Order: sequence, then structure tokens, then C-alpha cells
Amino acid sequence: MLFEGRNVLVTGGAGFIGSNLALRLLHEGARVTVVDPLVTGCGGNEFNLAPAESRIELVRASIGDKAIEERIAAADVIFNLAGEISHIHSMLLPERDLEINTLAQLRFVQACVRCRPGVRIVYAGTRQVYGVPERIPVDETHPVNPVDFNGVHKYAATQYHMMLSRTGHLDAVVLRLTNVYGPRMALDVPCQGFMSAFLRKALTGQTLDVFGDGLQLRDPLYVDDAVEAMCLAGWIPELKSRSYNVGGPESLSLATIASLTARLAGAPQPVRREFPAERKAIDIGSYQTDSSRIKRELDWRPRFPFETGMSRTLDYYREHLERYLAAGDPNPPCKLDHPQ
Amino acid sequence: MLFEGRNVLVTGGAGFIGSNLALRLLHEGARVTVVDPLVTGCGGNEFNLAPAESRIELVRASIGDKAIEERIAAADVIFNLAGEISHIHSMLLPERDLEINTLAQLRFVQACVRCRPGVRIVYAGTRQVYGVPERIPVDETHPVNPVDFNGVHKYAATQYHMMLSRTGHLDAVVLRLTNVYGPRMALDVPCQGFMSAFLRKALTGQTLDVFGDGLQLRDPLYVDDAVEAMCLAGWIPELKSRSYNVGGPESLSLATIASLTARLAGAPQPVRREFPAERKAIDIGSYQTDSSRIKRELDWRPRFPFETGMSRTLDYYREHLERYLAAGDPNPPCKLDHPQ
Repeated sequence: MLFEGRNVLVTGGAGFIGSNLALRLLHEGARVTVVDPLVTGCGGNEFNLAPAESRIELVRASIGDKAIEERIAAADVIFNLAGEISHIHSMLLPERDLEINTLAQLRFVQACVRCRPGVRIVYAGTRQVYGVPERIPVDETHPVNPVDFNGVHKYAATQYHMMLSRTGHLDAVVLRLTNVYGPRMALDVPCQGFMSAFLRKALTGQTLDVFGDGLQLRDPLYVDDAVEAMCLAGWIPELKSRSYNVGGPESLSLATIASLTARLAGAPQPVRREFPAERKAIDIGSYQTDSSRIKRELDWRPRFPFETGMSRTLDYYREHLERYLAAGDPNPPCKLDHPQ
Repeated sequence: MLFEGRNVLVTGGAGFIGSNLALRLLHEGARVTVVDPLVTGCGGNEFNLAPAESRIELVRASIGDKAIEERIAAADVIFNLAGEISHIHSMLLPERDLEINTLAQLRFVQACVRCRPGVRIVYAGTRQVYGVPERIPVDETHPVNPVDFNGVHKYAATQYHMMLSRTGHLDAVVLRLTNVYGPRMALDVPCQGFMSAFLRKALTGQTLDVFGDGLQLRDPLYVDDAVEAMCLAGWIPELKSRSYNVGGPESLSLATIASLTARLAGAPQPVRREFPAERKAIDIGSYQTDSSRIKRELDWRPRFPFETGMSRTLDYYREHLERYLAAGDPNPPCKLDHPQ
């Protein structure tokens, strides 16, 4: 068991990737503390941690709160997944996005430097910081050209981690994850990316929309593969690099992803639609990850082809769908809390 | 006259570079409005605009204030120089730095998009975002690896401008300026970089300190050359690029810069000292700018060799020194206002 007897802190641990990671870390023998404010719009869901019953401590707080300092001080490894991931939300309420993704992270990394100097932190970054790819596949040296406020703010938080590691205050590593999908993804929050929208529609028997010609490539990453990468990054004693791009095993068009999802779910076949203007403005065209650095340095491999991962995902939601559709609404409105 | 009859807005226009730019724009026929909150620690000084008497409108406000929206709406070109430049301050009070350099800029660019969509903005960036150079001279494709919070936050503001230009909301250009020196630089604020410290000591007859071996290269840029670059970037109708590195005409060691400054000022010759720990942590070694892009695309050339620029600078301060030393204190303490 990789994390036997180790204290780990998972921020955003009631969210999609965070909860899958927390459950895995528990399985690996860790003592797991989750910090999550369960802010509307960020994907946190207490039900995500239900399989752990009382074996995971859930602290309902923002990562910027003073109250979590003792948890930071006790941590052997920190997995920092807190944040808002919606590109659309960030364009509607940029200051809210700055507050969640940058200011709270600034407070958090300062608390880490103060309470647990030199601690290993695995930060969940995003491929979105690269913006419209100048070349594919995209490796870690690709220029950073975000196309929305979310990308700017997540990148500032990335730089906090990197800068404080360069200056010897932390031992951080950033994983830039491609479109992650799987069990425990929020379906009741619109604007969480196409995988969430596809799943919501497929599971409620609606017709999936594919915007534009649907030929843009993506390499979806099943959540267990993302979690494996995070565990390796948290566990390896000496890091060779401070950032790793992490993508899925297959390069598929959005049209293919939609039709496979619909078929596996037994939903109607997708239809193509005109790009809505607010989505077109932040569309990045095709994206493909160059994951060779993490394969080489952390010996990571994605193990779930898309059909396998999607089948498992659908199985999960068939059993628990009512926990992921707020008030059963299959087309929820965009609701946002502005956190403290 | 380049800006005849044009309305220009200069944020941070009571500061060092901003005031020199505002005076030059007035000379070029522009109607100039300056927005500056005159926050302690940021270098703003009403005396800087004295030569313009009442011909420049000074609005005492933060760039994040609603009150300046009508000024934005009326601007033909915006020069955005507001900000805090101290690396040391940013490490002492990171949230203050985020507020000044990122949050206020976020509010400002949103106001520009709302009140004056598509407006040309020239944003004063900094070479500091590149961090420790991986190679010199440093061109615009060099990776961004800031070594302090100031660099992270200035880069986030840079990205706001770039991102909103990529998506068609603004027409912004960023100039990344190397160590700028010249008349109107704040001398009463410590932690404003070595040029300010050298000038303060030389002008008050103190011995200049050179940390370490003093062999680190810099290419100091005389403020009139920086102002010329900004005018060109604000004036040219079609921009070929969105970022330009701008450095001075000579590559000199810190030891040489110190001894030339001392000699020209008639101060004692400099002495070498151990690096203080807090400065060592953010030292970047040698830096040299590759200015070939701005030379090629904007036909800009630096015209002031260091000795010429420094002689003019000393002449200015000999006449007005009491306006730049708070309460005449030649070694002022580090005082910071936390702005609204």
C-alpha cells in the first residue's frame, strides 16, 4: 500500500477527481483529510465520499481559511484539487474566479510555507492554460496562452506552486490534466465542460449536441488513470520535473466521443449544431496531449480505453443518478455562489 | 506631433515612467488624463507632473474604481502603467500585491471591454516575469518563470490583456521593460530595485553597496527610450505582435553601473557586500534583453548610452532632490499602504 500510515490532505476532495483520489488514497492505507467548502458550482458533493463512511475526515472550509492550518501542519503529502473549473463561469464572473482559483490558493500556499515548509504538494492544473495549441501533441514546453479568465487564474496558482518550489519553500508538482471523465463528476452544474453535458444528456435520454463539425480531437482521461498519476506524483521521493501533461490513451473526435457515449447509454444519436457564440469564443480546436514526460519519469500509463471507462462511468450513474441531478432537473440553470 | 488632438489615458501617470510618458504625450499634442491613487510604496508623486501645471488632468483614483469609467470611454489610446513594482514588498505582503497588480487590473480591463471595446492599450510589463534566464539575450519566446509574487501577479495582468486581445475584446500590447532609470524615479521608497537605491545613495554622498561579485549583467534603459517605445506601441495602427521586450543599449555589470553612478555623482566608490538572504532568494543572475522584435517591427532604437542617461538623471535630482526624499530621510524605512 503506497500510502500506508501517511497523513494526506486532499483539497477539493468532495469534488469529482478529489473524491476519487481520496477513496483511492484510503485504499492505499493513508489517513485522509478532505477540505472542501462544497460551494455551488464547483462540483463538490458529499455523496461522493459515501463509500468511505466515517473513514475520511471532511472539513467544510475554503482552502484560504485559517482553520485548516493544523491539518496542513499534520500532512505528509498534500493533493491540491480545490477550484472552479468552469470556463463559462469565469467569463461571467471573473472576480469570483480570481477569488476561488487565485486568492484562496495564495492563502493556501502561504499557509503551507508557514505550517509545513518543504511539503510535497500535487496541484491539479489544466491543459486549458495552453489555449489554442500552436502544435499537437502538446508537451510541457508549449507556450501558455489561456483563452479565458479561468486559464489565467489557474495558471497564476500554478506559478505560486512553481515559484515557491524554485525558491525552496515547497516541493510542488503540477499535473496538467486533459478532459477527465468518470464516476462522481457533477452533472447538475452546467458549464462544466462537454463530458459532463454529454453524460447528463445521455443518462436522461436526451439527444447530445455536437457543436460545429465535431472533428476537434480530444483525448479523454478516465478518472482512475488521473488518480493513478496523482498518486505517483505524490509518492515518488525525488521529482525530476515540476510539471507533467497527462492525457488519455486515445485521440478521438468530439463527434466520436458523443456517438460512443450515446450508444453505450442507449440514448438517441447526437445531432450537430451551430456553435453558440460564447462557446465559439473559447473553443480551442483540436487538442492532443504529449504525455511522454510522465510516462518516462513516473512510469505512468493510461489503462482505460474510452469505451471501457465510459461503460464504467455509465454503470455508476445508472445506480446513483438521483444524487447527481439537483432536484432531478436534467437541464439545470447556471447557479453560482460567490464564496467568502 | 504623433498624438495631436488625441485623448490619452495614462494609469500610474504620477509614477516614474508614467509621468515621463504623460509629459511626452502632452508635448506630442495629446489631451492627457492621468489616473493615479498616489499609494505609498508605488512611486506616485504629484511633483512629477509639475512641469505640466494644469494641462494634465490628474484623477486620484485606483484603476479599479468605477469613477474612471467615463475617462476610459473617452480615451483613444490607453497607457496602462499602474502597479506596484517592488519584488521585496510582494514577498512581504503577497495579498496586497495581488490586489494592486491583478485584482485592480482585472477590474480595469473589464471596464475597458465594457466602455471602450477594442481600444488600444499599451501595458507596462516587466522582464521580471522571465525569472532566472535560461539563455541570454532573452527574447519574447523565453519561458515565464517568475521568482516572486510580483512576477506572478504582473504576468496574470499581462495575460488578461493578451487573452482579451486574442478573443477580440481589446487591442493590447505588452512591453516588457528592463531596468528603467531616469528623472522622476521614486527615491524615498526602498525596495524599488537597485537603480533607485544606487541613485539615493549616490545623491546623498553615501557609499553604494554591490551585492556578491557584482558581475551580473544588466542593460539599463533610460526612461526617454522607454517612453519612446511606449509611444510607438500606442501609435502604430496595426500591431504585428502583442509583446515586445525592451532593453537598453549597453550590457553592463552591476559593479560597473555602481561605479559609473558613483563617479558621475561625485560619491565614494562602491563596496562589495555579502548578498542579504532575502535578496539572494530573488536574484536572477545576469540578464540581457533581445530587443530585436521591437527594433524590427516598431523601428525603435535606444538613444541614450548609460553615461548620458545617468548624467541627465543626476542633473534632474540635483535640482529637485528634496522632492524625492521623504522628510529628507536618505535611508527611509519600508512603509506600505494597503489600498482599498
